[in-house]
Amino acid sequence: MREVAIIGVGITKFGELWDASFRDLGIEAGLKAMNDANLTGSEVDGMFIGNMSSGSFIAQHHISALIADYSGMASQNVPSTRVEAAGASGGVAFRQAVMAVASGMHDIVVVGGAEKMTDVSDEAANSILDSATDQQWEAMFGATFPSLYAMIARRFMHEKIATREEIASMAVNSHAHGALNPDAQFRKAITLDTVLRSSMVSDPLTVFDCAPISDGAAAVVLCPLDAAKKYTDRPIKVTASAQASDTLALFQRNDITTFGATAAAAKRAYSSAKIKAEDISVAEVHDHFTIEGIMALQDLGLFKKGEAGKAVKDGQAAIGGKVAVNTSGGLKARGNPIGATGVAQIVEITKQLRGDADKRQVKDARYGLAHNSGGTGSTVVVSIMEAL
Amino acid sequence: MREVAIIGVGITKFGELWDASFRDLGIEAGLKAMNDANLTGSEVDGMFIGNMSSGSFIAQHHISALIADYSGMASQNVPSTRVEAAGASGGVAFRQAVMAVASGMHDIVVVGGAEKMTDVSDEAANSILDSATDQQWEAMFGATFPSLYAMIARRFMHEKIATREEIASMAVNSHAHGALNPDAQFRKAITLDTVLRSSMVSDPLTVFDCAPISDGAAAVVLCPLDAAKKYTDRPIKVTASAQASDTLALFQRNDITTFGATAAAAKRAYSSAKIKAEDISVAEVHDHFTIEGIMALQDLGLFKKGEAGKAVKDGQAAIGGKVAVNTSGGLKARGNPIGATGVAQIVEITKQLRGDADKRQVKDARYGLAHNSGGTGSTVVVSIMEAL
Repeated sequence: MREVAIIGVGITKFGELWDASFRDLGIEAGLKAMNDANLTGSEVDGMFIGNMSSGSFIAQHHISALIADYSGMASQNVPSTRVEAAGASGGVAFRQAVMAVASGMHDIVVVGGAEKMTDVSDEAANSILDSATDQQWEAMFGATFPSLYAMIARRFMHEKIATREEIASMAVNSHAHGALNPDAQFRKAITLDTVLRSSMVSDPLTVFDCAPISDGAAAVVLCPLDAAKKYTDRPIKVTASAQASDTLALFQRNDITTFGATAAAAKRAYSSAKIKAEDISVAEVHDHFTIEGIMALQDLGLFKKGEAGKAVKDGQAAIGGKVAVNTSGGLKARGNPIGATGVAQIVEITKQLRGDADKRQVKDARYGLAHNSGGTGSTVVVSIMEAL
Repeated sequence: MREVAIIGVGITKFGELWDASFRDLGIEAGLKAMNDANLTGSEVDGMFIGNMSSGSFIAQHHISALIADYSGMASQNVPSTRVEAAGASGGVAFRQAVMAVASGMHDIVVVGGAEKMTDVSDEAANSILDSATDQQWEAMFGATFPSLYAMIARRFMHEKIATREEIASMAVNSHAHGALNPDAQFRKAITLDTVLRSSMVSDPLTVFDCAPISDGAAAVVLCPLDAAKKYTDRPIKVTASAQASDTLALFQRNDITTFGATAAAAKRAYSSAKIKAEDISVAEVHDHFTIEGIMALQDLGLFKKGEAGKAVKDGQAAIGGKVAVNTSGGLKARGNPIGATGVAQIVEITKQLRGDADKRQVKDARYGLAHNSGGTGSTVVVSIMEAL
């Protein structure tokens, strides 16, 4: 199995981008990543696209071919593959690309993630998102993602794993970092009070506990580690990329204060990378809801169970804290164009490990982790990158 | 890169299966394939699912987790990945699984393909299918797949590459074989007259030139070739699996009498397998429309350009002919549950190479080929299997 490196990254602004189409966004991110890797298109021999639902958001299936076409890759018949795993689509696409290079079946691979969510009404968008719950046993009975995560938050509070304020502090942390990221959807720091006093979505979660609906795209370029120096003097090694599944429906779990797929993927990733959670100095975790981010920090072993909420509230997840979490602004402030999110996380970790993160740079980071989750932790990908 | 073998196959009946849900079908095929491989679930460490649009057909995204869940794999957190490439979804899923085993990242992988298309109206189904054309530049202006393929057929006739009767003979060939396949949707032989005198869909293509809308699922189990004998005494080697892209829209092509992605994928597959087209004795080709099948036979090099139509009409694509084509009945007679089709092709080729194809058995077949195509040849996968 060959070792794999990241040699280029690219990202669009995230937000309500009414001037840009899905194809515009996908191409912009891809070309930025290829320029960053000093690549010409003729060197690319594989493409992977993470996307949740272009079929529902823009009535366009087969976007793997669309992106190959509009990026000029179709003229050399480059294989292009779309993967979908709801919110984990981007992370799964990244892992497929790692596999493609590791196997020797591909040499230079571009992985993109893209979603165009604001061309439909908010009601339609929420209905599309909720089709990633168990349609037959959750959505049919009125369950939505906000309500499912609200139940998890209630359980955290009931079992005293985290207080309401501690959960809300995840959004404060993400917004503080998002304010430093020029590509973020929301670039404004907020206080705990903002979260607690915002409009209620599903008790106890307010609108500031929830990531927004966004348009955007992100891309990275991979190649075998031993060829990486041809393209960049700062290759970032992909030390591990592990994936795990859990039941689709939340009610099937024995315990909703932990996501088994996050714990399993993290265990596999640390084992494969031969490191421990303590070695991670920068992490992008999936905070579609604040409670999801807090739970992830515990399931990833970055903080102990019962301590993550307090740690975030105390600034231990800030830049300069024990582990810098969501320096990009996370899903909450950077934005969450579903299929793009997992790839955007890799872009941020790469920038951090290269020392390219400007005002939000974490000092002396060697290992960075990306945690991308779909549904209620039904598919999770944990990837670990290393500065060489 | 490790060599890969097929150690088990499973398939459901194809047809209008109103008694079976999407999840029922996916599980039935997967369990049959695992039983065929003498596997217990605890040995499986990876899953791939080919599916075009559960999001639109049954309002359910994230079916990778759904299938992992209902097959019991979620309890051991087995990674499960859905891929989509319109009609090529199953073939692309198969190729990802080959890559997963070849890379060493997975050992025992189940690949499933599934689609449940008959829970929506025919009009809705056609609208979903047509969302795999270029929505912005084809569908918006009224182009549908039947009309795009009708233009290709007209061009074939205009350039005298094939006559109307020769094109129609592809359906006669598929139906003759489908009559011998107990799992086929249509098990009735037809005459050329049936095709020519049926209701017109898009001139010159009649309803018998077009594959049906179907429900169904298929699955195969892969493992490293050197471990295959632990599970079966008749492993089938995956000698090559190659993929290629072309423009999404048909009007972007210089020549619509050939699909560049089929030619490119075939060239890569033959080169990787170190064989020639003449070595193939059994092939499953993508005949969503009769003309698509005829064109594929030429682009794959199984017959020369201008000779495929005549060869099919003369029985050279029948069992006992030069190369046995679509012994399963093809998309036309076996049925075409979109995401399942590419995997069903692998199931048929495996049965043929094992000598398990009963009344439709091809004698002494060593190499078999599966050709799976999405859209108007915008994504194509060509896989070659070998009897050991």
